[in-house]
Amino acid sequence: MAKVPLDRPSLANCPIAHSLSIVGDAWCLLILRDAHMGLTRFDEFRSSLGIAPSMLTKRLTTLVKEGLFKKIRYSEHPPREEYLLTPAGQDILPVLFVLGAWGQAHKLCETGARMPVFIDSETGLEIEPIVVDKITGVEIGKATIKRKKA
Amino acid sequence: MAKVPLDRPSLANCPIAHSLSIVGDAWCLLILRDAHMGLTRFDEFRSSLGIAPSMLTKRLTTLVKEGLFKKIRYSEHPPREEYLLTPAGQDILPVLFVLGAWGQAHKLCETGARMPVFIDSETGLEIEPIVVDKITGVEIGKATIKRKKA
Repeated sequence: MAKVPLDRPSLANCPIAHSLSIVGDAWCLLILRDAHMGLTRFDEFRSSLGIAPSMLTKRLTTLVKEGLFKKIRYSEHPPREEYLLTPAGQDILPVLFVLGAWGQAHKLCETGARMPVFIDSETGLEIEPIVVDKITGVEIGKATIKRKKA
Repeated sequence: MAKVPLDRPSLANCPIAHSLSIVGDAWCLLILRDAHMGLTRFDEFRSSLGIAPSMLTKRLTTLVKEGLFKKIRYSEHPPREEYLLTPAGQDILPVLFVLGAWGQAHKLCETGARMPVFIDSETGLEIEPIVVDKITGVEIGKATIKRKKA
């Protein structure tokens, strides 16, 4: 799991560092990916990811504690629970899309395999995620930005 | 470091999994954060992040190997090297912004500290990163998308 030293001056005030202290772990983000694909149960995550049960338990516990999943009992006899995305967990979707787009743009996936394509349900056109500034609409990284003086 | 089992069927064709096999590690992303803030040298990263030298060496080696940094010798006597972002490393910036925005939106940072604010150099307005589909301009997560059938 990510052990980000948030007491360090250069990290204490950084929202990136705070986010990474929770989801700065490949397994956590892959579990969230699977949750966005509709998986909810321990055995589903384990079988999709091939993750060791102890590692999966640890990560699910963190994701519940940090408010990305809520754990719901769906059967009393036998006791069975599932993991549902909270609003904070739902909002990880753009992060996952941007990570995937970065990998595709830089041809990190050279397995020769066909990557999944996501389309807009209405237009049927392929989704191409980009990060823009909400006000100007300009892509992040394409215009000069600077840190505001305190 | 992230050990994503990319030979697993549910991960082999997934660009998110491939990206995470490289940057699915809090330290790697924090090193890239620092590089985007202008740091280039081993000692600068070490002092900014408080990371153990052996862990930093390992991650810098990976980031060079995976093409996010190029290692440049800037002094021959004594031999000294620095790490410069490649285009793939530059393009991680939107991922970092989206991660930070997610943390801020969900109030993960409760240190009471003032978070840094980034502004557009031209307009002076605060940057608010959102992820949209390049074609429709609709925010990812706000419209229904589906996986295209192969």
